Parts: sequence; C-alpha cells; structure tokens
Amino acid sequence: MPIIECVPNISEGRRQDVLDACAAAVRGAGVRLLDVKPDAAHNRTVYTFAGEPASVKAAVLALFDAALAHIDLRSHAGEHPRLGAVDVVPFIPIEGATMADCVTLARETAEAAAAAHQLPVYLYEEAASTPARRNLEDIRRGEFEGLAAKMARPEWAPDFGPSAPHVSAGASVIGARMALIAYNINLATDRLHVAKRIATAVRHSSGGLRFVKAMGVTLADRGIVQVSMNLTNYEKTPIHRVFEFVRREAARYGVAELESEIIGLVPSAALTASAAWFLQMNDEFSDAQILETQLRQSS
Amino acid sequence: MPIIECVPNISEGRRQDVLDACAAAVRGAGVRLLDVKPDAAHNRTVYTFAGEPASVKAAVLALFDAALAHIDLRSHAGEHPRLGAVDVVPFIPIEGATMADCVTLARETAEAAAAAHQLPVYLYEEAASTPARRNLEDIRRGEFEGLAAKMARPEWAPDFGPSAPHVSAGASVIGARMALIAYNINLATDRLHVAKRIATAVRHSSGGLRFVKAMGVTLADRGIVQVSMNLTNYEKTPIHRVFEFVRREAARYGVAELESEIIGLVPSAALTASAAWFLQMNDEFSDAQILETQLRQSS
Repeated sequence: MPIIECVPNISEGRRQDVLDACAAAVRGAGVRLLDVKPDAAHNRTVYTFAGEPASVKAAVLALFDAALAHIDLRSHAGEHPRLGAVDVVPFIPIEGATMADCVTLARETAEAAAAAHQLPVYLYEEAASTPARRNLEDIRRGEFEGLAAKMARPEWAPDFGPSAPHVSAGASVIGARMALIAYNINLATDRLHVAKRIATAVRHSSGGLRFVKAMGVTLADRGIVQVSMNLTNYEKTPIHRVFEFVRREAARYGVAELESEIIGLVPSAALTASAAWFLQMNDEFSDAQILETQLRQSS
Repeated sequence: MPIIECVPNISEGRRQDVLDACAAAVRGAGVRLLDVKPDAAHNRTVYTFAGEPASVKAAVLALFDAALAHIDLRSHAGEHPRLGAVDVVPFIPIEGATMADCVTLARETAEAAAAAHQLPVYLYEEAASTPARRNLEDIRRGEFEGLAAKMARPEWAPDFGPSAPHVSAGASVIGARMALIAYNINLATDRLHVAKRIATAVRHSSGGLRFVKAMGVTLADRGIVQVSMNLTNYEKTPIHRVFEFVRREAARYGVAELESEIIGLVPSAALTASAAWFLQMNDEFSDAQILETQLRQSS
C-alpha cells in the first residue's frame, strides 16, 4: 500500500474544542495522526497525518466538514497570512507513492471538497494548473479580506468550485509537494554576519542551491549563530550537499560547523541517501537492500 | 508488533525439490521470506525471513519438519562445516524487538524443536547458557561425524533434547545475535598487501575494532583490492567509524577509498545512524523524528 502524508493548515490556533473536533475527524477516517501543532499568535494549527490514499482523502474531507462548521474567517485574526478556514492542504509522497499519485489525490480531493461545501479551491505547487499558481504566496496574496476583489479577475477563477468566496470559509489551496525538511546548522561563533552571509550563499533566492531557503539567526541563550534552513526537495538538493556547502563557506570565515539539527520529522530515505553518499557506496547499492524496504513491500 | 529476523542455514544446497519444500514450509507460517541463497559447493542453503515472534517461531518449527524429512547427514557432503540437517538458526532483533526478546524466542524454539524431533539442540551467541558455547565454531568443531564422541563428554550435553545425536539430523544450534552487515571497501590500488595490512589493522582478532572481521582480497577483474568485512554489531562498531578508520589507514599508504559496498540487506537504523554522525546531528536528534518510525508505532 502506498503511504501519503498530508499536512493541512487550518485558521484556528486558540479554541481547543475546535482543534479537538478537527483531530477527531481526521482520526475517524483511519489515518495515523502524527502531530498537531497549534500556534495561538498565528491563530493557526498544522495537522500532520499519513495513510493510504483513500484514507488520506477521507481524512481531509472530514477535516473540511469539521473546520467549516466552526471557523468563520470574518471574525478571525492572527499574524499568519490566510485565505480560508482550511487554508492549505499539501499531499506528500512518502513510501511506495509517486508525486504523480499525490497530484491525482490533490485534484480528486479538491474537486470533492469544492462540491461538498460550494467552496472555491485552487491547486498549487506540483498540482498547479498554471505556472502562476505554483507558489502558495501568489495565490494567498490579498488574503481573505481581498479575496472577493481578486476572484473578480478572470485569471483568478478557481480550479474547482464557485467563482466567489465562501462567505465564512473563503477559499482553500490544495496541492502536492515533496516532504520539507527543517534543517539547521549551528556554527561555532557568535558572529551573526557570518551566518547571514552563509545563508545568502546557500539559498536559492540569492544564487545558491535550487531547493534551499535559508536565513542567519542568533541563538542568544547559547551565544552562537545558526544557518536556519528549509530543504524543499531533499532528492534534488540532498542534506549532505547542504552540509558540505555550509561547511566550506564557514571555513572561509575560519568558523567550524558545531552541529546540525532537524526540526520535526524527516523521511528515512533522506537520511539513508546521506549515509550512502558519505560512505561512498557503489552504484549497485539500492534502497532494496534496506531490510525495512523488503519488509514493507507488498507483505 | 515487534519484528524479528531469522536466518537459518540448512545442510542442503543441491536438490531443488527439498529447497522448495523448505521455502513452502516457511511461507506457510505467515512470515515474509526475503531471500533463499543455496550454495551447491557448500551443499548448504541460507533462508532469510522476518515477522512477528510467534510467526517466526512457527516458521522455524515448520522448517525443521520439512528439512528433517528430507536431509540425512550420513550421506551429506559439502565444503562447509556442519553439525545438523538444520545446522544453525539465529534470531535477530529488527524493529520494536530487543536482544532479550530474541534470546527468549531462541530458547522457546530450541525447546520445541528438541521435543518435536528428539533432537539435541545447543544455544549459542547471546542465547548461550555458558561462555564456552557463545561461539558457533566451538560448538560445531568435530562436525556431524565427530558428534557422538563429542556428546559423550559431559561438558557437551545439549541445552535441550537427548544426550546423543539424532541418527540422520545430528544436532542443531539455535541462538540470538545482532544483524550482521557484510561491508566491503574498495581501494584505488592494485597492491594487495595494502588491503591485507588495513584488514589486519581494523579487525578485532589482530588488535582492531571490537565487532569487525576483515580480510584483504584482490578484485582481479577490476585491477583493484578490497577490504572485505563483516560488521557483527553495528550499534557498537558502526559503519561510519569503520569507513573513517579504513580511510585513515589507506592514506598512510597514499591510497584513497574508491567506494564501499553492502552485500545483501542492511537495517535502516545502521544507515540513519551513519547519516546522523556525518551530519553532526545534535543530541536532541532521535529515531522518533524519522517519519517511518512514527508510522510503524502501534498504528
């Protein structure tokens, strides 16, 4: 059975009864709920769950039912930009599933959610119907408050559902993307400008590696600095390459890498690929040699 | 559910009908048969399978039934030393299982096999009842042909079953051990003495790392040499430490590591531990952050 992960963000981070109702809806669909991360300041909560495609789709639709029954964007305030009650729903291939599987699942789920709630839905990232809709930020610009005006323009007709916002739930953005790895490297220095210069060197937006977002920050309590990163495609820009890149840049300032850290979850394949690279494994080596891979295959 | 691997060796490597009967017996017990490796010269076959403890025990007992019905050691010849029709049965902790679980399973399975076939059974490695029985080679010394004389000595009374050999099946050795990793490093040189000296340096028996067996060999078709190793406890002597040890020794001869290779299967944990080491992951990092670990836990 292929396993797909889903990480929906809903526009509620304060009312525990609403968060519990949404969690119960997800669990009831037979997926494994791995994490619930509410943020009161953002007034937003991230659910992480995984399962086989049909269950994941059912869990998302149950989450839409629960969230739309309790969340009214007209009275919602929080620091994080948002377009809808269920703001964004990415599907992520984990095991025995391809990106194409996730794109298909995104389209089917978007169509069903739009029909169930008369809700406009946009497809994004790998599921986007046009390049202009790949980036979440572009779709979300203007937020809930600007949505009616935005949707009046023909180029912002939704992929599914009506061409006007849902009165209380706005619109939703559903798509498919690679697993994102929150990866930080701590440097043996307190010089923030070193971390900032390395971040500038390594990140895609300023000339660095294609699937890296990065910034330099101070860890005040430890008296050191950190290159804080998101790796948005660990197959194409793998962890080990980022580690070695940052190590070399740091050396140019006479600074050593102290340690690295992963925040939250990481797919096993991202780590085994790094082990294979550092160990200089030969071309014959494949994931099929990993015992657990054998155990999972159509057992 | 805990997952335990089992890698029994039977004394038949030529008659396909017997090998098929044994494979069918294993599969019938509800485990996943991962590999069957017959060796005609050794006249011996290695089965690899895995499953939850009760199924693994049932598979081993079914294998005893099938093997003892077809194999007669009195007419068996092959290059590999052997004591019995089912020669050796190691249980290996894989996922959610401890070594103590495997020791318990080894004892229970040994007792049941001895009772079912009036067969003497010795416990070895982690399941051994005395230090003198830890090493398989010590138990097997004298082989089937010398077994009656050996068993006449009180110190070689079996752990289970009668104090004399089974007439056609000899005796069996059952135990628990860590997963063994067959790990080789190819060197960018054709100088065999370099590989041999590195093997001497890295292996336990001549002063090297505690859980490494090693020898130097020539890969004639490629014009290079190899340090060919078995890592017998990847938690205590991990792959990355062996890799770096060999790299440093090779540099002393002006030789580079060309590549490394793993033969057969490797537990995922052995590779993720190496990735964490090379990437200098901080102390907070744990296996619980690996997505697949979360998915498997009591789902």
